Amino acid sequence: MKRIAIDMDEVLSHFSTSCLELFNKEFNKNYTTEDLQGKMLVDLDARFAEKMDHYLANESFFLELKVIKDSQEVIQKLSVHYDIYIVTAAMEFPVSLAPKYQWLKKNFGFLNENNFVFCGDKSIIHADYLIDDTPSNLATFKGKGMLFTAPHNRDVTGYTRLNNWQEVAECFL
Amino acid sequence: MKRIAIDMDEVLSHFSTSCLELFNKEFNKNYTTEDLQGKMLVDLDARFAEKMDHYLANESFFLELKVIKDSQEVIQKLSVHYDIYIVTAAMEFPVSLAPKYQWLKKNFGFLNENNFVFCGDKSIIHADYLIDDTPSNLATFKGKGMLFTAPHNRDVTGYTRLNNWQEVAECFL
Repeated sequence: MKRIAIDMDEVLSHFSTSCLELFNKEFNKNYTTEDLQGKMLVDLDARFAEKMDHYLANESFFLELKVIKDSQEVIQKLSVHYDIYIVTAAMEFPVSLAPKYQWLKKNFGFLNENNFVFCGDKSIIHADYLIDDTPSNLATFKGKGMLFTAPHNRDVTGYTRLNNWQEVAECFL
Repeated sequence: MKRIAIDMDEVLSHFSTSCLELFNKEFNKNYTTEDLQGKMLVDLDARFAEKMDHYLANESFFLELKVIKDSQEVIQKLSVHYDIYIVTAAMEFPVSLAPKYQWLKKNFGFLNENNFVFCGDKSIIHADYLIDDTPSNLATFKGKGMLFTAPHNRDVTGYTRLNNWQEVAECFL
């Protein structure tokens, strides 16, 4: 079986949406993901630079992330034909380790936890495909990197782009 | 730079020694690592089967593991010439995730945490070498697997064996 490694934040979970919600509440703003097109959070509002560590220091931030549409159904179908690994950068915020595990068991409980990988540098991953929203992760990956669309990567070129989980299904099934 | 992936339990940390200490205390026994040669803990005493989950459920178990002799000095020297990744199976006991991170930062703080990998199945690892005490991890590894001697693997053949960290230094430096 071919092996697909799948990123977590912005691919399975609405990471930046939750950041926007917390920020909007704190600063009485109305930023939406539309405002984030082609930008990182700090480009949208410089105050994110000092706030992010605070938001991510809370275990419940990771536990309560919403699941991206169709990801569960499509990955369940993919797992019949491919070995699926969930590969997430967790070492920069070690407080995320335990809640990321719990989130995956709750929302993707049909996957074997032995196929979860919590790492930093993803060039350590040996797989045929990597679906990830971060271009730098794809750049050092030895297999075929595929860019999952997130607001911040709208203008990135040079990778096969997957705009949503229905496109992932069409590509792999 | 070539890349060396290094296991944690029984390669960097005295995992089974701590298990023996807890068991000896609880059951008033005097098992030593000598008694464990060629055996798993449950082969030495069947009561380990029910006790292991209990021992490993305690975060402090992982935090307090002793460091294996010479591992820090040799890895510090290796890291000048090789990219070092620490690759540990943590998903079976997710309570170990946070304390394993803390243990590595405390005892191997000279390594970048982006080079820590917490996983289950190690066939996902892309590296040139894997130093590990568990033969099944080496069997599915795509690079060169090297067996680090631990009591339980005394009788295993078929891999380049490294008996201690001085032998690792001689092999790689």
